Amino acid sequence: MNNLTMLTDLYQLTMMNGYYKSGISEDTLVFDVFFRKNPSSGGYTIACGIEQVIDYIESIGFSEEDISYLRSLNLFGDDFLKYLEGFKFTGEIYAVKEGTIMFPNEPILRVKAKAIEAQLVETTILNIINFQSLIATKASRVCMSAAGDPVMEFGLRRAQGPDAGLYGSRAAVIGGCIGTSNVLAGKMFDIPVLGTHAHSWVQKFPTEIEAFRAYAKSYPEKTMLLVDTYNTLKSGIPNAITVFDELREEGYEGKGIRIDSGDLEYMSKEARKMLDDAGYPNVKITASNDLDEYAIANLKSQGAKIDVWGVGTKLITSSDWPSLGGVYKLAAAEENGEIVPKIKLSEDPQKINNPGYKKLVRIYNKSTGKAEADLLLLDEEIINEDKPLKIFHPTYTWKTKVFHNYYIKELLEPLFVDGNLQRERRSVTEIKSHVEEEKDSFWPQYLRISSPERYKVDLSEKLWKLKTTLIEKKKAPALD
Amino acid sequence: MNNLTMLTDLYQLTMMNGYYKSGISEDTLVFDVFFRKNPSSGGYTIACGIEQVIDYIESIGFSEEDISYLRSLNLFGDDFLKYLEGFKFTGEIYAVKEGTIMFPNEPILRVKAKAIEAQLVETTILNIINFQSLIATKASRVCMSAAGDPVMEFGLRRAQGPDAGLYGSRAAVIGGCIGTSNVLAGKMFDIPVLGTHAHSWVQKFPTEIEAFRAYAKSYPEKTMLLVDTYNTLKSGIPNAITVFDELREEGYEGKGIRIDSGDLEYMSKEARKMLDDAGYPNVKITASNDLDEYAIANLKSQGAKIDVWGVGTKLITSSDWPSLGGVYKLAAAEENGEIVPKIKLSEDPQKINNPGYKKLVRIYNKSTGKAEADLLLLDEEIINEDKPLKIFHPTYTWKTKVFHNYYIKELLEPLFVDGNLQRERRSVTEIKSHVEEEKDSFWPQYLRISSPERYKVDLSEKLWKLKTTLIEKKKAPALD
Repeated sequence: MNNLTMLTDLYQLTMMNGYYKSGISEDTLVFDVFFRKNPSSGGYTIACGIEQVIDYIESIGFSEEDISYLRSLNLFGDDFLKYLEGFKFTGEIYAVKEGTIMFPNEPILRVKAKAIEAQLVETTILNIINFQSLIATKASRVCMSAAGDPVMEFGLRRAQGPDAGLYGSRAAVIGGCIGTSNVLAGKMFDIPVLGTHAHSWVQKFPTEIEAFRAYAKSYPEKTMLLVDTYNTLKSGIPNAITVFDELREEGYEGKGIRIDSGDLEYMSKEARKMLDDAGYPNVKITASNDLDEYAIANLKSQGAKIDVWGVGTKLITSSDWPSLGGVYKLAAAEENGEIVPKIKLSEDPQKINNPGYKKLVRIYNKSTGKAEADLLLLDEEIINEDKPLKIFHPTYTWKTKVFHNYYIKELLEPLFVDGNLQRERRSVTEIKSHVEEEKDSFWPQYLRISSPERYKVDLSEKLWKLKTTLIEKKKAPALD
Repeated sequence: MNNLTMLTDLYQLTMMNGYYKSGISEDTLVFDVFFRKNPSSGGYTIACGIEQVIDYIESIGFSEEDISYLRSLNLFGDDFLKYLEGFKFTGEIYAVKEGTIMFPNEPILRVKAKAIEAQLVETTILNIINFQSLIATKASRVCMSAAGDPVMEFGLRRAQGPDAGLYGSRAAVIGGCIGTSNVLAGKMFDIPVLGTHAHSWVQKFPTEIEAFRAYAKSYPEKTMLLVDTYNTLKSGIPNAITVFDELREEGYEGKGIRIDSGDLEYMSKEARKMLDDAGYPNVKITASNDLDEYAIANLKSQGAKIDVWGVGTKLITSSDWPSLGGVYKLAAAEENGEIVPKIKLSEDPQKINNPGYKKLVRIYNKSTGKAEADLLLLDEEIINEDKPLKIFHPTYTWKTKVFHNYYIKELLEPLFVDGNLQRERRSVTEIKSHVEEEKDSFWPQYLRISSPERYKVDLSEKLWKLKTTLIEKKKAPALD
């Protein structure tokens, strides 16, 4: 990963300079990273990108070239620019385990650091977490629709730039895909890479069957043929069968065909029939072409005979919901040596943040092991699991629920303390298996792709009271 | 830019290996890069990303580490892997000038190279061109809606990964934005960077006015204040005016306010009144919050008093149309020493490609200087501008048009010949001014953001006949 120190918004640097000039750059600030809506109007979001946040935080530093560029902007004092020469991140970051299932308004990360450091990292952290969480979530939805069938990611050519292809593949595999077409992603993240040939291979040869024969000769053990260059049913599949027959004579078995156009329901059924009749019940049918969770659900409900799904553009861009609106909101700030909870008001009550230095717990039913609700509370609050736990809805406060037979998990774990990484790095394989555990720990109604049931995320009474008090205090300010 | 050699689909490498094994890896292939639909159902697309294609092509090369990773996949022969050690691009690429206005089915780039080289570069070229052209087009649409008002790009935090922020900013400025919040983009591409402060700055201080005063003290000559942290009309603007008054006493003039929430039409009108009444008719009002070309058009039609537009998420992701579907289609291939035009059939007639080694000309009216139609023709065809030029519709062939008083421009220019770059590198400033010239060279009906008139892109008679013949030949193939 490149050094992303300068990949930030200019206003972070102008504010940092302002804090520096005002003599408050070392005051502590606390920020929460959270989002307000699940992508694709779904029920959940998979937190993704934490490992890249680590790469980023560890590599922070301004080069001479960076500083001379900043000097050229005539916005910054010499003292401040001098200070930047030795800049690094020395604060605290807590984060959920990568792959955790998250809900609106829950902190994915919590940053507590000197004002000047906490401010710099906002944009880059959001950029990383927003994109990868978006794609992991989309992939998870697509794989849920495929109901256990393998899903391959191959959207690189339509991804929003090189990194979107690279980190998008990573997130897609974390979210559930079995592999990617992206070779660099395979190399960097040790994830399976997949792919055979394109239409151009078929066109290169004078005839389709010559192209298929040449491919089978190159990959006799892995012959998977793209059958829709000219005419899928009249030419592509008959030619593929001929080549599979020839392979069989040499002791090899054809592996699959791929269909990339046309009516995938009809084509796949016809293809299955032709392959079965020719003695190839084990040849797999892969389908691709503008697929997403909705198209796959439809095709499956119509009985399409598709074994493997290739998903491109609509996954890698999350085309129906191309951004996760993650924000980085000030929750507390040092004033005269004391950490004070902070609020930002808004006309829209959903946009008022939860103030204070907080933690997040998930409440599980002891008998079923399933998650039942999440609770946001102040960091100093302690839950005694031996006693019943009462939670209530933050807006409709008369809606309450009492847990008796439960246990809790704290979701935020230390990532950096005093600028030092607190744990071992995690592989994509580990993260992917955490996603699977996470999915198992929720009742399916919270995860279904359309009209999911809303999972409860409540505030502790103490936090709720703090929030209400701060709103009252700020809502009708005397004109200072 | 990183070395992107491995940022490709696995099937490019399996096909390369297949060509190599089949002894046809040095046969020439010709590919066209084109798209079939303009983004956002608009009338045009701005070609963008050509300079990054140059970076990519010039840096192609497999490292030892890359090759040992490829070896570990057990897909490639030792000879082939050995061959990759010295791999570079030695072919020909023609491309339109970056910033050219393009229409569906027109080649943005044309690659003519050895099969093994032409195949590798497909995915990366598409990734680069698809994303930057998408964002340049979106930015151009947004700026058209703003009708001359400055538009700032600040979507980095919601961009689809680091590169999407970086190259998206570049494309946004090429498309018409006056600058970006993205500091790294400013440094790398020498484009203006913009930005002041966030809500967190205001919240950090005990009161809003203290925050404004501290900001004004840090930037007395550039005081632009975000007024919606608590209450825009009752607190933010009155406090801003107080601080502008204090600045004026010290000989400085406040520069602007920014509103980032609420009803921007009402808020901007009220803000304008308050500022004017207080003696600040020159203080500019910047607005942001979920803006795109449609929202801006609406706000302008309602007379919102907004001077500067800050556009984020919806621009940097092109949220209503998050991918340009650019493709890389084989147009010709060497067979037994001869270059043969190639076609791919499809159930959907729009998806049948234009075969052959082609060029693209734009026809201008000599009196008005405006573009009137584009013509795709075979490279060997010559147009005599002294004679009338007749073109006809490729589907409705009875629709014809004859040009008398015209001149033509060839749009494809040499980028690489024998692997060598053919021209000087171009700056964002040069490319941006080319976009402006391009916009001036079209009648507005072709460029309007909704329901544009369709611009004519026709085929020469020779090309049309070639295409028709190839379709006939391939459509009912004997089962080989």
